[in-house]
This record gives sequence, C-alpha cells and structure tokens, in this order.
Amino acid sequence: MVLVYHGYTGRLAALLSGIGVEPGDRVRVVKDGEVFEGVLMPRYTVRASEDILVIKLENGYNIGIKVDERTQVSLASKKSRLERVAEPEEAVESKAKIVLLSTGGTIASKIDYETGAVVPALSTREITEWAPDLTDIAVFEAREVMRVFSEDITPSDWERLANEVYREMKRGVNGAVIAHGTDMMSYSAAALAFAIRDKPVPIVFVGSQRSSDRPSSDSILNLKGAFITASRAPIAESLIAMHASTSDDLIAVHRGVKVRKMHTSRRDAFQSINDKPIFLVNPYTSEVKQVGKILKTRDPTRTPSLEARFDDKVALVKAYPGVQNEIIDMLVDKGFHGIVIEGSGLGHISNRLLDSIKRAVESGVPVVMTSQCLFGRVNLNVYSTGRRLLEAGVIPAEDMLPEVAYVKLSWVLASKTRDIAEVRKWMLTNLEGEINYRHTLDLYPRWLYE
Amino acid sequence: MVLVYHGYTGRLAALLSGIGVEPGDRVRVVKDGEVFEGVLMPRYTVRASEDILVIKLENGYNIGIKVDERTQVSLASKKSRLERVAEPEEAVESKAKIVLLSTGGTIASKIDYETGAVVPALSTREITEWAPDLTDIAVFEAREVMRVFSEDITPSDWERLANEVYREMKRGVNGAVIAHGTDMMSYSAAALAFAIRDKPVPIVFVGSQRSSDRPSSDSILNLKGAFITASRAPIAESLIAMHASTSDDLIAVHRGVKVRKMHTSRRDAFQSINDKPIFLVNPYTSEVKQVGKILKTRDPTRTPSLEARFDDKVALVKAYPGVQNEIIDMLVDKGFHGIVIEGSGLGHISNRLLDSIKRAVESGVPVVMTSQCLFGRVNLNVYSTGRRLLEAGVIPAEDMLPEVAYVKLSWVLASKTRDIAEVRKWMLTNLEGEINYRHTLDLYPRWLYE
Repeated sequence: MVLVYHGYTGRLAALLSGIGVEPGDRVRVVKDGEVFEGVLMPRYTVRASEDILVIKLENGYNIGIKVDERTQVSLASKKSRLERVAEPEEAVESKAKIVLLSTGGTIASKIDYETGAVVPALSTREITEWAPDLTDIAVFEAREVMRVFSEDITPSDWERLANEVYREMKRGVNGAVIAHGTDMMSYSAAALAFAIRDKPVPIVFVGSQRSSDRPSSDSILNLKGAFITASRAPIAESLIAMHASTSDDLIAVHRGVKVRKMHTSRRDAFQSINDKPIFLVNPYTSEVKQVGKILKTRDPTRTPSLEARFDDKVALVKAYPGVQNEIIDMLVDKGFHGIVIEGSGLGHISNRLLDSIKRAVESGVPVVMTSQCLFGRVNLNVYSTGRRLLEAGVIPAEDMLPEVAYVKLSWVLASKTRDIAEVRKWMLTNLEGEINYRHTLDLYPRWLYE
Repeated sequence: MVLVYHGYTGRLAALLSGIGVEPGDRVRVVKDGEVFEGVLMPRYTVRASEDILVIKLENGYNIGIKVDERTQVSLASKKSRLERVAEPEEAVESKAKIVLLSTGGTIASKIDYETGAVVPALSTREITEWAPDLTDIAVFEAREVMRVFSEDITPSDWERLANEVYREMKRGVNGAVIAHGTDMMSYSAAALAFAIRDKPVPIVFVGSQRSSDRPSSDSILNLKGAFITASRAPIAESLIAMHASTSDDLIAVHRGVKVRKMHTSRRDAFQSINDKPIFLVNPYTSEVKQVGKILKTRDPTRTPSLEARFDDKVALVKAYPGVQNEIIDMLVDKGFHGIVIEGSGLGHISNRLLDSIKRAVESGVPVVMTSQCLFGRVNLNVYSTGRRLLEAGVIPAEDMLPEVAYVKLSWVLASKTRDIAEVRKWMLTNLEGEINYRHTLDLYPRWLYE
C-alpha cells in the first residue's frame, strides 16, 4: 500500500506525517545551506516526483524543493485557522460571509505540480488548504456552479450564474466572488451587472493570468484582493479584481461594465477603459483605497431583483474596409434580434451598408453603434456618414465598449423589450455606469516613447 | 458685381487687395489695443461673414478676427515662396521632391470658416496658400487620387492608391505623403506596406482628428511632420505620422502595420501596438529623432515592385460569448476566401465553433487567429481550446493586430496564393514588421490610477 498524505507519497509523505505538518502550516526547509520558510501546500499530482515538497513563500510564490537525504524539514508554526482553532463565536460573527462561486478557468483549478495538467474544481476545504489567508478575511463557502473555459460561456450560462448569485444575496452574504476564466470575464461581469438589479452587496469577478502551477501565478493575490473587496469595500456593483501592475503589490478593482482584457498574458491585462478603476486594494495590509467613483453603495438591507434573461440571437459585427453588406443581410434573414456594430472612429461603417442597416431596423432589429477605437465616444453628428446612420435608425452607444453594448443589448432584448423605440431608451439609459458622460484627460493611458 | 479676393468679399476684399497682401503673407492686425500677427489664410466660404479675416498664428492655430472700422490691418512681410521668389537653381535641386496624394477625409478638405462645411480637394496651389511652410521642407506636387471618406475605402481603392504611389516611386520622388481620413487609415497604411515590395523611399499617411476649421486643428502640424519624414527620414516603409500627444509639439511616426486608432477624437489617437513608434519629429525644428527600429532603410536606387491585388472576399469576425457558428458557416457557403478571427485572450473562440472552422479549412478557406486583447501575442499551445484550433488548421497570427491580419490575408489571397499551406507560410513570414518577435515591458502603456 502506498502512503498518500495530502498528495505527497513515499518518503516525503512519511516525513511530513511524522513531524505532524499539514497544508497551511509553516515549514522550514534547510538545503545546501539555504533556508526556505513558507506555507506547506497540498499536492494535486497525477505522476508527481515523489521527492518534491511545495511551499508558498511570503511573496506569494510557490516553489518546489527537491528533498534529499541532506535536506532538513521542520515545522515552523501550526496554522491558526477556523477549522483548527475554535474561534470565539463573536469573532466568527463579525467576519464577513462570502460565497466563492467557481465557473472554471485557470484560477479555479487544482495544480499538478509535475505534469502541469490543470484539474478544475475547488472545494472550500481545498481552497483553505491552498490559500489559508483567505479565512482571515472572511468566512466563506466555495462551490462550483459550472466547469467551462470562459471562451465557451454563453448567455444562458450568465442566467445560471445570476440565479446562483441572486440566491446567495437573498441568503444574506456580504459579497460574492466569482472565479472565472479571464478570456470572457469582462463580458460576464457586464452581464451580472445588468442581471441583478438593486444589488445590496458587490459581485467580484476574479481570474488568473498565470496558472497556479507557475511560480509567477497571480491567483492567490487576486483572490485575496477579491475577498477583501467582496467583504468590506463600500460598494454594491459588479466588479473585476486583478493585478494592477506586473508587481505583486496592488490589486485594481474595475467596474465590470468599463473594463477589458487588454493583454494576452500580462498579469495587469485588465484595464478600465473610459473610466478609472474604483479601488486599489493592498492584499497584504487589506487596505482599500478608493481612486474612482462608487456609483452604487453597499446596503445589505436593499432587496435585489432578478432580471436575468439574455437573448442569444445578438451579433457583434466589426467594421473593416470592404465589410460586406451580406453580413448584415444574413443576420436579419436568419432571424437575429439585434446587432451591435464595432464601427470605425466616431462610429462609422461604410455607406455601402446603409440600405442593409435600414432594412434591419425596419424589420425590427435594433442596430447599435460603438467604436473599435475603444477609447472615446461615438458621435454620429460630426460627419455625413454618421448623420445618415442616425437617419437609418442606428442607436449611438455613447462611450460604451463594444463588448458591453453587446451584453446590454442581449439583456435588454430578453429581459426588457423588443420594441425598437424602447430598446433605444434602455440602451441610452445609464444603468450601471456603462456610460461615462464625462471623460477627463487622464483616462487615456500614457504611451511610452523613449 | 461682387469683388472676391481669395475668398474674401466686400470691404475686406477691397482692403486686402488695396494693401497688396495675399494668402501666405504675414499680416498685422491691431484691434482694441491687441496685436495679432500671422499668415493670411485664404477663405473657402459658402456664406461667409464678410468681415471675418482669418490668420494662422505662430502656434499653428487659425483665428478669425472681425474687422470693424477701428481695426487696422497691415502687411508685416511678404511670403518668400517658390512661386514668388525665384530661388537659385541649386536650392531647388537640393530639396526633396514629395508627392502629396489626397484620398479624402478631414485633412484634405477646404474649410468654410462660417458654415463649417467641409469641401474636399486640395491642389498644390491651395495647399501652398494654406500651409506655406511646406515649401520650405520640400518641392511638392499635390494631386487628388480619390475623394472618399475613409470608412468607405475598399480593397480595390488600395490597389488604385498603390498603383499611383508605385508610379511616383518609379518617377523618382523622395517620398509619398497620403492625406487620408483617420477612420480606416491604419488599414490602408498596412495595405500599402504589402502592396509595394522593395520600396526605395517611404510612404507617409497623414490625417487630421480635428477639421481644419477648428482652432485646435492638427492638420498643418501633422502635414509638416509627414513632409519632414517623407523627405528625409532614413526609412523606406509605410508609415503613419500623427500627433504624439495632445500638445502641438511632436509628431509620432508609426510603422503602418503596427499602429491603430485608439481614440475617437484625441489628436494623439494613433498609437503603436506591440511596437514602438519609429520617429518623433519636431515640426518646428525639423529634427527627426529615432526612438524605434528601422526595418527597411531608404535607398532611392532600389527598384520597387508592385503586387497590389487584394481579395475582397475576406471577413474579420469577432469572438464573443455565444458567437454563432452559423456566422462561419454562412461565410463559407457564400464563397468567402478567407476568415480572420478576433479571438479572446491567447487566441480562442468557443469550442462550439470547432466543426464550422474545420469545415472552412477543409473547404480551402484559411482561418487566421488574432486576439481582441490587441496587446500581446496569440499562443494556441497553452490551453486545450487553442490546441484543438491548431489541429483544426487555424493559423496563429503571432502578435499581429486583427486589422493587419485582415489586410495581409486579403493581400496574400489575391497577390500570392490561395493554396492553404502556402497561405500559412506567407501569413507567418514577417514581411514588413507586422510580426514583432520580441516584446519589451515598455510596449504596454502606463495606465493612470490616481
């Protein structure tokens, strides 16, 4: 029989169980004169090297240490966690209650330290072993609500997720944290912004740009930032919490309807567009610094309502030179209910498409205009192309991101109305800060030239 | 009979012709104790106030001054221009020869100072009156090659434009400046990068974010920057020259295949993505400072070749949650020749579309993957979705912008090959710097937080 001890096997399992350390405890490792101290991590391994011990260092990085005959491993201190030390009841009472809902993606994955294979699903217990600090921030319950890559998420998944969060809000949680793949995270954050009205507490989406098996993983710090935000930030909006820079220092909290993944791999990929992040959170001191505007304040007594239907017959179409009018025609012929155009500049698309757009609107298919510039605001009154689009009935979506206009139109069509005049009203009503009427110069990033 | 003098009428026409000033001359205006000195501008007016005199100040701004009985207007100095003062022949000889081709758009417009109406088309003479400094930089000839809003430009317009520039290169110009609407300017700059191989001299696209009738117009400074670049920068690539910041100080010169309009209205809307601008040009001192990499150096003895065909049956499709596989199916069924996907994150699209993508590739329709993050690089080897896309035959376009991959695929399909294996080779061959294999941290802009 093979001894397995929190994922460790063979000699290491014997050693660790012998000295009585468990995941979450601090261990001290002396090897070749070097001293490593950190929190023992459990190992989720398919074919692990038997002699690799994994600890999380103070800076949040995980390292694997090959333990040989000359390596000394000792217990530095036991973890003092909920599940071990019975805390006075008031302490538990005073802690925020958080629900962590996992949808899949890099952050909600177990790590196989050797193969690099990523195994989804984290239970409360596994999360506690993996990131013991979280229990200092809040009492939490973790649950998997779906297991999909974020690129596979559909509008009907948003409905499911909104239902889960709504139920938790009714149960009185102080905040919901959603572990989500980063690819489509901003779309989902926008979806939940609209799907639950009158939120009493925040919904905080969090992801990871580097999988947890890499030493540079951002998952634990991001989770801490999300937990701090969910449990105590004075806000009740749908948010995204991710690294503010490439350093492991601050977590930026962005408004879910004003944020976008701007880099394929950097830890600070998520950036607010046409708006500022709302908070900078220090995951070491738990300090929450407000740097942007809070639009809806936290109020646990507020009663949320659920309007969580999304129309999956909406398309997001990009304008490019030579864009073919048959793309619009096809969408109308196939019975699509709405079209968002990612136009050029102030919100233009070739005049060749005017007739197709007119026909769409006349057939009751709302056409919404956004800009592929991303920064700035659509204005259809400056050039004649814009004026013709307005005459054709196009709805100019102000400074809304194309992705957010897509989500909002999908929500309006299924949750509110398909009457085209009403759709226009809803699209131009600022519900969740998706429209920012005033841009200051500092909303545009600084581009480095030398 | 109404006296019309360079667009001025009535009393002002009489006054100006009386003191013998012409557009391009410096005039001095004293009004209510204030003194204004600047270059007299011609007036292109439909229903102009008769008494508004327009001068360009030293800082490049145009102002209109209402001339009443107490206003004194006098000649400060005559312009000393080619057409007036016969320069010594050597001076003319040593000057660079530039061609300015206008395609339409804000920059290539006459200004109606009162109505704000914008009338396209600029002749060499009109440009010289409007921006007399340009003749200090180069000997130039201006010609209108088309008159379209840039959102209406099509791949066949690129063919026409490339032919014109090619002919000018064969005639021995030192550089070509293309006045272009800003909406689709980066697409056209990419198109000309590919369409003329072995360029001996640069092609410099230039536009204007504020129409010339506004005091904050950026058109003259941008044109100066473009002229300086075209006439003396040691490079032979397709470029875009636009404001580097909101101040009227420096013009940034970007590689045409690595630049994007990132703001709907700011003067510094054009920014290099995944690359640095190549030059910063001071339009006052004509200093050209290199800040990025030159990939093809200027060599007037090099013989260019023309490969200027573009396929208009190429589509650029954006990935979004719930993206419908029928969009891909429809493109294949309608006989499209190529598809560029603007995927999420590292280059993903929902696994639901895999079969449609496979069918496209099997039907001989190349499918190219880029990222809607814009910054960073596609990598289909990290996650299983990416690996499945690779197996389906998707071509990962490295760090190419979606817009540039679209232009390049359109060019490859019409100018090179429709064989799918050959298309892959061409797409992955770095022809014009459209692929940057090495990203430094400073390529990502700095986002402001406080």
